[in-house]
Amino acid sequence: METDILDAHTFWMQKAIRQAENAFEKEEVPIGAVIVCNDKIIGKGHNQTELLTDATAHAEILAISAANQYLAAKYLEDCTMYVTVEPCVMCMGAIKNSRIKKVIVGTKEPKSGFSKFVSPDFYTKIEVDFGQQEEQCAQLMRDFFKDKR
Amino acid sequence: METDILDAHTFWMQKAIRQAENAFEKEEVPIGAVIVCNDKIIGKGHNQTELLTDATAHAEILAISAANQYLAAKYLEDCTMYVTVEPCVMCMGAIKNSRIKKVIVGTKEPKSGFSKFVSPDFYTKIEVDFGQQEEQCAQLMRDFFKDKR
Repeated sequence: METDILDAHTFWMQKAIRQAENAFEKEEVPIGAVIVCNDKIIGKGHNQTELLTDATAHAEILAISAANQYLAAKYLEDCTMYVTVEPCVMCMGAIKNSRIKKVIVGTKEPKSGFSKFVSPDFYTKIEVDFGQQEEQCAQLMRDFFKDKR
Repeated sequence: METDILDAHTFWMQKAIRQAENAFEKEEVPIGAVIVCNDKIIGKGHNQTELLTDATAHAEILAISAANQYLAAKYLEDCTMYVTVEPCVMCMGAIKNSRIKKVIVGTKEPKSGFSKFVSPDFYTKIEVDFGQQEEQCAQLMRDFFKDKR
Protein backbone atom coordinates (compact mmCIF):
# COMPACT_ATOMS: atom_id res chain seq x y z
CA MET A 1 0.00 0.00 0.00
CA GLU A 2 1.31 3.42 -0.97
CA THR A 3 0.92 4.83 2.56
CA ASP A 4 3.89 2.69 3.60
CA ILE A 5 6.22 4.60 1.28
CA LEU A 6 5.61 8.05 2.71
CA ASP A 7 4.66 9.35 6.08
CA ALA A 8 0.87 8.95 6.20
CA HIS A 9 0.18 12.65 6.84
CA THR A 10 2.34 13.57 3.85
CA PHE A 11 0.57 11.02 1.72
CA TRP A 12 -2.94 12.21 2.54
CA MET A 13 -2.05 15.89 2.35
CA GLN A 14 -0.73 15.23 -1.15
CA LYS A 15 -4.22 14.01 -2.02
CA ALA A 16 -5.68 17.23 -0.60
CA ILE A 17 -3.14 19.24 -2.58
CA ARG A 18 -4.21 17.38 -5.73
CA GLN A 19 -7.76 18.58 -4.97
CA ALA A 20 -6.45 22.14 -4.59
CA GLU A 21 -4.71 21.81 -7.96
CA ASN A 22 -8.04 20.75 -9.48
CA ALA A 23 -9.52 23.99 -8.16
CA PHE A 24 -6.57 26.00 -9.52
CA GLU A 25 -7.04 24.49 -12.98
CA LYS A 26 -10.70 25.62 -12.91
CA GLU A 27 -9.69 29.13 -11.81
CA GLU A 28 -11.13 28.59 -8.36
CA VAL A 29 -9.27 29.64 -5.19
CA PRO A 30 -7.00 26.58 -4.81
CA ILE A 31 -8.11 24.87 -1.63
CA GLY A 32 -8.62 21.14 -1.36
CA ALA A 33 -9.70 18.68 1.32
CA VAL A 34 -9.90 14.95 1.84
CA ILE A 35 -11.47 13.00 4.67
CA VAL A 36 -9.73 9.79 5.68
CA CYS A 37 -11.24 6.92 7.64
CA ASN A 38 -9.51 3.58 8.23
CA ASP A 39 -6.72 4.41 5.79
CA LYS A 40 -9.11 5.28 2.98
CA ILE A 41 -10.44 8.50 1.46
CA ILE A 42 -14.21 8.58 2.05
CA GLY A 43 -14.82 12.16 0.94
CA LYS A 44 -12.96 14.78 -1.04
CA GLY A 45 -13.63 18.22 -2.38
CA HIS A 46 -12.14 21.34 -3.84
CA ASN A 47 -13.38 24.86 -3.72
CA GLN A 48 -16.09 25.35 -6.37
CA THR A 49 -17.81 28.56 -5.34
CA GLU A 50 -17.48 30.07 -8.82
CA LEU A 51 -18.32 27.00 -10.88
CA LEU A 52 -21.35 26.13 -8.76
CA THR A 53 -22.20 29.80 -8.04
CA ASP A 54 -22.57 28.81 -4.41
CA ALA A 55 -21.03 30.65 -1.48
CA THR A 56 -21.21 27.45 0.59
CA ALA A 57 -19.30 25.26 -1.90
CA HIS A 58 -15.98 25.25 -0.06
CA ALA A 59 -13.69 22.21 -0.24
CA GLU A 60 -14.45 21.15 3.33
CA ILE A 61 -18.25 21.37 2.98
CA LEU A 62 -18.19 19.30 -0.20
CA ALA A 63 -15.86 16.76 1.38
CA ILE A 64 -18.05 16.42 4.48
CA SER A 65 -21.22 15.98 2.41
CA ALA A 66 -19.45 13.36 0.29
CA ALA A 67 -18.21 11.48 3.35
CA ASN A 68 -21.69 11.61 4.89
CA GLN A 69 -23.07 10.04 1.71
CA TYR A 70 -20.31 7.44 1.52
CA LEU A 71 -20.83 6.26 5.09
CA ALA A 72 -24.60 6.90 5.04
CA ALA A 73 -23.93 8.58 8.38
CA LYS A 74 -24.19 12.17 9.57
CA TYR A 75 -21.26 11.89 11.96
CA LEU A 76 -17.62 11.32 11.07
CA GLU A 77 -16.19 10.68 14.53
CA ASP A 78 -13.36 8.39 13.48
CA CYS A 79 -12.26 10.48 10.52
CA THR A 80 -9.42 12.90 9.90
CA MET A 81 -9.70 15.84 7.54
CA TYR A 82 -6.69 17.03 5.56
CA VAL A 83 -7.19 20.51 4.19
CA THR A 84 -4.64 22.66 2.38
CA VAL A 85 -5.67 26.01 3.93
CA GLU A 86 -7.00 26.88 7.39
CA PRO A 87 -10.80 26.48 7.33
CA CYS A 88 -13.03 29.55 7.47
CA VAL A 89 -15.65 30.01 10.21
CA MET A 90 -18.32 28.23 8.14
CA CYS A 91 -16.11 25.23 7.52
CA MET A 92 -14.92 24.95 11.12
CA GLY A 93 -18.59 24.97 12.11
CA ALA A 94 -19.25 22.17 9.62
CA ILE A 95 -16.29 20.17 10.97
CA LYS A 96 -17.75 20.47 14.47
CA ASN A 97 -21.28 19.62 13.26
CA SER A 98 -19.97 16.48 11.58
CA ARG A 99 -17.99 15.52 14.72
CA ILE A 100 -14.68 15.14 12.92
CA LYS A 101 -12.08 14.81 15.66
CA LYS A 102 -8.85 15.64 13.86
CA VAL A 103 -7.96 18.26 11.26
CA ILE A 104 -4.56 18.48 9.59
CA VAL A 105 -4.08 21.90 7.99
CA GLY A 106 -1.54 22.97 5.38
CA THR A 107 -1.15 26.71 5.69
CA LYS A 108 -2.71 29.30 8.00
CA GLU A 109 -5.14 31.89 6.66
CA PRO A 110 -4.63 34.83 9.01
CA LYS A 111 -7.30 37.02 7.39
CA SER A 112 -10.32 34.75 7.31
CA GLY A 113 -9.28 31.54 9.09
CA PHE A 114 -11.42 30.29 11.96
CA SER A 115 -8.74 30.81 14.60
CA LYS A 116 -9.06 34.58 14.30
CA PHE A 117 -12.79 34.59 15.04
CA VAL A 118 -13.93 31.39 16.76
CA SER A 119 -13.50 30.85 20.50
CA PRO A 120 -11.27 27.86 21.37
CA ASP A 121 -14.16 26.70 23.60
CA PHE A 122 -15.92 25.74 20.39
CA TYR A 123 -13.33 23.22 19.28
CA THR A 124 -11.87 21.80 22.49
CA LYS A 125 -12.68 18.27 21.29
CA ILE A 126 -11.08 18.75 17.88
CA GLU A 127 -7.33 18.30 17.41
CA VAL A 128 -6.09 20.81 14.86
CA ASP A 129 -2.52 20.61 13.56
CA PHE A 130 -1.11 23.33 11.32
CA GLY A 131 1.84 23.29 8.96
CA GLN A 132 1.56 20.00 7.05
CA GLN A 133 3.28 20.64 3.69
CA GLU A 134 2.73 24.29 4.45
CA GLU A 135 5.00 25.65 1.75
CA GLN A 136 3.36 23.74 -1.08
CA CYS A 137 -0.15 24.67 0.09
CA ALA A 138 0.79 28.34 0.50
CA GLN A 139 2.60 28.49 -2.84
CA LEU A 140 -0.53 27.37 -4.70
CA MET A 141 -2.46 30.24 -3.10
CA ARG A 142 0.30 32.76 -3.90
CA ASP A 143 0.47 31.59 -7.51
CA PHE A 144 -3.28 31.87 -7.86
CA PHE A 145 -3.57 35.38 -6.51
CA LYS A 146 -0.46 36.53 -8.41
CA ASP A 147 -2.16 35.48 -11.66
CA LYS A 148 -5.29 37.41 -10.65
CA ARG A 149 -3.47 40.71 -10.12
CA MET B 1 -50.08 42.17 -1.87
CA GLU B 2 -50.14 40.17 1.33
CA THR B 3 -47.20 42.06 2.86
CA ASP B 4 -49.49 45.08 3.26
CA ILE B 5 -51.74 43.21 5.66
CA LEU B 6 -49.09 42.33 8.23
CA ASP B 7 -45.86 43.88 9.31
CA ALA B 8 -43.31 42.72 6.72
CA HIS B 9 -41.02 41.07 9.28
CA THR B 10 -43.98 39.13 10.68
CA PHE B 11 -45.03 38.10 7.20
CA TRP B 12 -41.61 36.77 6.18
CA MET B 13 -40.94 35.10 9.51
CA GLN B 14 -44.22 33.25 9.08
CA LYS B 15 -42.77 31.85 5.85
CA ALA B 16 -39.65 30.74 7.74
CA ILE B 17 -41.86 29.16 10.42
CA ARG B 18 -43.72 27.28 7.68
CA GLN B 19 -40.32 25.88 6.65
CA ALA B 20 -39.63 24.88 10.24
CA GLU B 21 -43.01 23.12 10.34
CA ASN B 22 -42.00 21.20 7.21
CA ALA B 23 -38.93 20.01 9.08
CA PHE B 24 -41.04 19.07 12.12
CA GLU B 25 -43.37 16.99 9.95
CA LYS B 26 -40.35 15.07 8.65
CA GLU B 27 -39.03 14.52 12.19
CA GLU B 28 -36.13 16.90 11.61
CA VAL B 29 -35.13 19.52 14.20
CA PRO B 30 -37.67 22.23 13.30
CA ILE B 31 -35.64 25.14 11.97
CA GLY B 32 -36.57 27.05 8.83
CA ALA B 33 -35.14 29.94 6.85
CA VAL B 34 -36.13 32.15 3.95
CA ILE B 35 -34.06 34.74 2.09
CA VAL B 36 -35.91 37.80 0.87
CA CYS B 37 -34.77 40.19 -1.85
CA ASN B 38 -36.90 43.00 -3.25
CA ASP B 39 -40.00 41.78 -1.44
CA LYS B 40 -39.70 38.25 -2.79
CA ILE B 41 -38.45 34.92 -1.43
CA ILE B 42 -35.43 33.90 -3.51
CA GLY B 43 -34.30 30.99 -1.35
CA LYS B 44 -35.79 28.84 1.39
CA GLY B 45 -34.80 25.82 3.35
CA HIS B 46 -35.51 23.68 6.36
CA ASN B 47 -33.23 21.50 8.34
CA GLN B 48 -32.75 18.17 6.53
CA THR B 49 -29.68 16.67 8.18
CA GLU B 50 -31.43 13.35 8.83
CA LEU B 51 -33.25 13.00 5.54
CA LEU B 52 -30.19 13.91 3.48
CA THR B 53 -27.75 12.26 5.93
CA ASP B 54 -25.69 15.42 5.70
CA ALA B 55 -24.29 17.35 8.65
CA THR B 56 -24.16 20.50 6.51
CA ALA B 57 -27.84 20.43 5.46
CA HIS B 58 -29.05 23.12 7.85
CA ALA B 59 -31.93 25.40 6.83
CA GLU B 60 -29.65 28.41 6.30
CA ILE B 61 -27.12 26.56 4.11
CA LEU B 62 -29.88 25.17 1.89
CA ALA B 63 -31.54 28.59 1.66
CA ILE B 64 -28.26 30.31 0.71
CA SER B 65 -27.47 27.71 -1.96
CA ALA B 66 -30.99 28.09 -3.34
CA ALA B 67 -30.73 31.89 -3.42
CA ASN B 68 -27.31 31.67 -5.10
CA GLN B 69 -28.86 29.49 -7.80
CA TYR B 70 -31.91 31.72 -8.19
CA LEU B 71 -29.85 34.87 -8.66
CA ALA B 72 -27.00 33.07 -10.45
CA ALA B 73 -24.81 35.03 -8.07
CA LYS B 74 -22.52 34.04 -5.21
CA TYR B 75 -23.25 37.15 -3.16
CA LEU B 76 -26.55 38.14 -1.60
CA GLU B 77 -25.71 41.69 -0.52
CA ASP B 78 -29.20 43.12 -0.78
CA CYS B 79 -30.95 40.22 0.88
CA THR B 80 -32.39 39.60 4.32
CA MET B 81 -32.48 36.17 5.92
CA TYR B 82 -35.33 35.21 8.25
CA VAL B 83 -34.46 32.19 10.36
CA THR B 84 -36.50 30.69 13.17
CA VAL B 85 -33.56 29.79 15.45
CA GLU B 86 -30.21 31.49 16.04
CA PRO B 87 -27.74 30.20 13.42
CA CYS B 88 -24.91 27.89 14.48
CA VAL B 89 -21.26 28.76 13.81
CA MET B 90 -21.32 27.03 10.41
CA CYS B 91 -24.40 28.92 9.30
CA MET B 92 -23.16 32.30 10.55
CA GLY B 93 -20.00 31.66 8.55
CA ALA B 94 -22.11 30.90 5.49
CA ILE B 95 -24.13 34.10 6.02
CA LYS B 96 -20.88 36.08 6.08
CA ASN B 97 -19.47 34.22 3.06
CA SER B 98 -22.62 35.01 1.08
CA ARG B 99 -22.48 38.67 2.18
CA ILE B 100 -26.02 38.75 3.51
CA LYS B 101 -26.33 42.04 5.37
CA LYS B 102 -29.34 41.47 7.59
CA VAL B 103 -30.53 38.49 9.61
CA ILE B 104 -33.83 38.39 11.49
CA VAL B 105 -33.82 35.61 14.08
CA GLY B 106 -36.75 34.04 15.90
CA THR B 107 -35.39 32.53 19.08
CA LYS B 108 -31.92 32.37 20.61
CA GLU B 109 -30.01 29.10 20.87
CA PRO B 110 -27.81 29.61 23.93
CA LYS B 111 -26.07 26.24 23.69
CA SER B 112 -24.90 26.16 20.08
CA GLY B 113 -25.79 29.56 18.61
CA PHE B 114 -23.05 31.58 16.94
CA SER B 115 -23.13 34.39 19.50
CA LYS B 116 -21.63 32.12 22.15
CA PHE B 117 -18.57 31.26 20.07
CA VAL B 118 -17.98 33.77 17.28
CA SER B 119 -16.23 37.09 17.90
CA PRO B 120 -18.42 40.12 17.13
CA ASP B 121 -15.51 41.33 14.93
CA PHE B 122 -16.57 38.66 12.47
CA TYR B 123 -20.01 40.09 11.86
CA THR B 124 -19.64 43.83 12.31
CA LYS B 125 -21.18 44.40 8.86
CA ILE B 126 -24.17 42.13 9.49
CA GLU B 127 -27.23 43.45 11.28
CA VAL B 128 -28.68 40.68 13.45
CA ASP B 129 -32.04 41.16 15.17
CA PHE B 130 -33.32 38.61 17.65
CA GLY B 131 -36.82 37.95 18.92
CA GLN B 132 -39.04 38.03 15.82
CA GLN B 133 -42.03 35.78 16.64
CA GLU B 134 -39.78 34.29 19.29
CA GLU B 135 -42.47 32.39 21.16
CA GLN B 136 -43.78 30.56 18.10
CA CYS B 137 -40.26 29.62 16.95
CA ALA B 138 -39.24 28.44 20.43
CA GLN B 139 -42.48 26.48 20.94
CA LEU B 140 -41.83 24.42 17.82
CA MET B 141 -38.42 23.45 19.19
CA ARG B 142 -39.84 22.63 22.62
CA ASP B 143 -42.60 20.49 21.09
CA PHE B 144 -40.06 18.63 18.97
CA PHE B 145 -37.69 17.78 21.78
CA LYS B 146 -40.56 16.94 24.16
CA ASP B 147 -41.72 14.31 21.66
CA LYS B 148 -38.19 12.91 21.47
CA ARG B 149 -37.79 12.34 25.20
